[in-house]
Amino acid sequence: MLTRPIYRGWTAKSLRRQLSSQAGSGLKINSDRLLETLHHTCQWGAAHRYGDAPTETGMNRLCLTDDDARVRRWLLDEAEKLGCSPRGGRYDGILGVIAALEVLRTMKDQGYQTQFDVGLVNWTNEEGARFPKSMCSSGVWAGEIPLEKAWNLSDIFNPSVTLRSELKRHGFLGDTPCSPAGYPLGAHFELHIEQGPILEDANKKIGLVTGAQGYRWLSINVTGRDAHTGTTPLRARRDPLLAASKMIAASNAIAKQHGALASTGVLKLPPTASTKTVASEVTFTLDIRHPRDSVVHAVQDECLSVFAEIAREDGKGVTFDWTLDTDSPAVQFDANCLAAVKDAATQLVDADGWLEITSGAGHDTVYTSRHCPTAMIFVPCKEGVSHHPEEYCKPEDCALGTQTLLEAVVNYDRMRSKLK
Amino acid sequence: MLTRPIYRGWTAKSLRRQLSSQAGSGLKINSDRLLETLHHTCQWGAAHRYGDAPTETGMNRLCLTDDDARVRRWLLDEAEKLGCSPRGGRYDGILGVIAALEVLRTMKDQGYQTQFDVGLVNWTNEEGARFPKSMCSSGVWAGEIPLEKAWNLSDIFNPSVTLRSELKRHGFLGDTPCSPAGYPLGAHFELHIEQGPILEDANKKIGLVTGAQGYRWLSINVTGRDAHTGTTPLRARRDPLLAASKMIAASNAIAKQHGALASTGVLKLPPTASTKTVASEVTFTLDIRHPRDSVVHAVQDECLSVFAEIAREDGKGVTFDWTLDTDSPAVQFDANCLAAVKDAATQLVDADGWLEITSGAGHDTVYTSRHCPTAMIFVPCKEGVSHHPEEYCKPEDCALGTQTLLEAVVNYDRMRSKLK
Repeated sequence: MLTRPIYRGWTAKSLRRQLSSQAGSGLKINSDRLLETLHHTCQWGAAHRYGDAPTETGMNRLCLTDDDARVRRWLLDEAEKLGCSPRGGRYDGILGVIAALEVLRTMKDQGYQTQFDVGLVNWTNEEGARFPKSMCSSGVWAGEIPLEKAWNLSDIFNPSVTLRSELKRHGFLGDTPCSPAGYPLGAHFELHIEQGPILEDANKKIGLVTGAQGYRWLSINVTGRDAHTGTTPLRARRDPLLAASKMIAASNAIAKQHGALASTGVLKLPPTASTKTVASEVTFTLDIRHPRDSVVHAVQDECLSVFAEIAREDGKGVTFDWTLDTDSPAVQFDANCLAAVKDAATQLVDADGWLEITSGAGHDTVYTSRHCPTAMIFVPCKEGVSHHPEEYCKPEDCALGTQTLLEAVVNYDRMRSKLK
Repeated sequence: MLTRPIYRGWTAKSLRRQLSSQAGSGLKINSDRLLETLHHTCQWGAAHRYGDAPTETGMNRLCLTDDDARVRRWLLDEAEKLGCSPRGGRYDGILGVIAALEVLRTMKDQGYQTQFDVGLVNWTNEEGARFPKSMCSSGVWAGEIPLEKAWNLSDIFNPSVTLRSELKRHGFLGDTPCSPAGYPLGAHFELHIEQGPILEDANKKIGLVTGAQGYRWLSINVTGRDAHTGTTPLRARRDPLLAASKMIAASNAIAKQHGALASTGVLKLPPTASTKTVASEVTFTLDIRHPRDSVVHAVQDECLSVFAEIAREDGKGVTFDWTLDTDSPAVQFDANCLAAVKDAATQLVDADGWLEITSGAGHDTVYTSRHCPTAMIFVPCKEGVSHHPEEYCKPEDCALGTQTLLEAVVNYDRMRSKLK
């Protein structure tokens, strides 16, 4: 049973419902063990202290570094203790892996037998922070990223080191083919912090992730002419930074009208940029997202049309071209997996306590969804902050998410034999 | 006399007036020699070829490099050949120095005796491209830049090399104090390409530069919060790049309303900027210019007021602060020097052929104007382009500007004894 102190912050009603529930697996995860384990693994790579408590640090554990290899070996050991034949962040990513371990430990402790095998996958290089390709291994598994391309990814700080050379150095270069044929999955469930403020703002405890929004990443290159800022009248300029600024503001307004997201994260000027020179050229990124692909395309079309107007607006005008760097269509998760999560969440937090939500970020589940039934569970994180040392998920939310994951897996395991 | 081919492109009327003029010094510069000399000196540092003709290159001759030292020594030799006791850019800067040499050569050739001494100053590190301080030596002379500060300026590519160490290496570290007391100037005339399109657009041959516009350089630092572009709703963001973009667009609109200039040349994001991350912080420069200081200040005040509104506009808002990096008040040149230039220009190109103009850029004359009577002469340059290999001033415009400089110096020399 979940210990009471962990549940402070819950409403009395949901707590009562939780304790009195007759349905469900009858299994209870050990939330103390879950949190202790999560923070235990964060000894490898703890960095960026922001408070005095032992756990008040962020993490710096790049993929396949020595610290990463240590925690991976630890995970293999722990899974082996559970009798598994393993074939396989502090919250972002890390919570999902540790929660899966807690699910296995709970089943083992309480002697629970599933109808189908249950495993844990610790996908390598999901973030792409060291080897720059997000969701790298699930992409290889799904056949979306060629194995050789993944292997040849270079460490961003040391081009002589590759993903393959590090896998080899750590003894992780196994011989199981990374593919649905070589390593089949009957279904794939993933617990993750939301990385956004929606659950917290709505005071919900569980996000039932129905799919992932579509996104397209464009690079816009605006070309003008370098000119002296003191001697060149506005009417005579071809100012690409002024045009880019207007384009960024316009893309935001267009996204708002569509209820979509449009964001510029990178803007580059030539290295010769100076206070007294109108730049010759500006490149910026445009990241457009919406749960419906049709809206993503509509926002893109409208942006490009308005950009063409802006290009003519000032002085002697600028020119621009664009490239599509990434096209990730919207994904719908599996109805049966979603039902398994929904039943679990409803039982644990009432129908009022969960929310259907679309994932804004990419996750390994987006790739696995193309080859097996999938769903995801979100838990709230403080102020939606992630990718930051102060990223934080309350212990009770970690525990509740893990319990939901356990129930969803059990629910799906029970219904699976009836599915065709 | 100016040879006829050089004058192609002039109107027949101004050419007739030129040839039949009885007034003036009676001296004619040798425009062939002027251009030959200008391009001769560009053998040292020629770079960035843009066409097939021998002169179709730009220049890369950073201050006090070996090439720069060679051309400086050549200039000393040439001046010594003219009997000078020298105490002292293809067009930008270079034209002014070579034109001054041509003025001295013409006077020498034709045995012309001025009432007062006439000299040539080859100001060191005017551009500030190698040692980052514009108008460095005239600033030291005027007492606006401390000598030690100038000496300690580091080469931007090699911090161990300073302006002083290079002056010493080349044997240019003289003992004449660089000050109005140590090296007095009775008046200072400077010929320069316009670096803007105003003369060319108005089809004028000579710019009578009445002063230099005031300018203020601000750095604006906008602070938000880094956030995931896929998971953070627009309403929850603190997006500094979106705010900065709106600020840049707004500053342009405000400058337009005032007939002023506002320009952003530099915009910096943190090195961690990525397509899928709203940046935490943006810094950009704002360069505001107008011939009247009151307008510069009005534009600045209005910009900062509108920036404060913009900071509150989107999502959860951003904060910003700003610093004043440079404050260069407007400068008025000397009425007598201007009269000397105006008489010269009117005689050479008719009253229709010249235009009063305000310098948009800083020049050594801005500093010297604080301690002696000054004026400047502009000649048109192709499409207003400067600081670029394809910077171009027609041979006949170089010649006419040099002739104007000669006449202006002679005019001022004649009137000087009558001035109190």
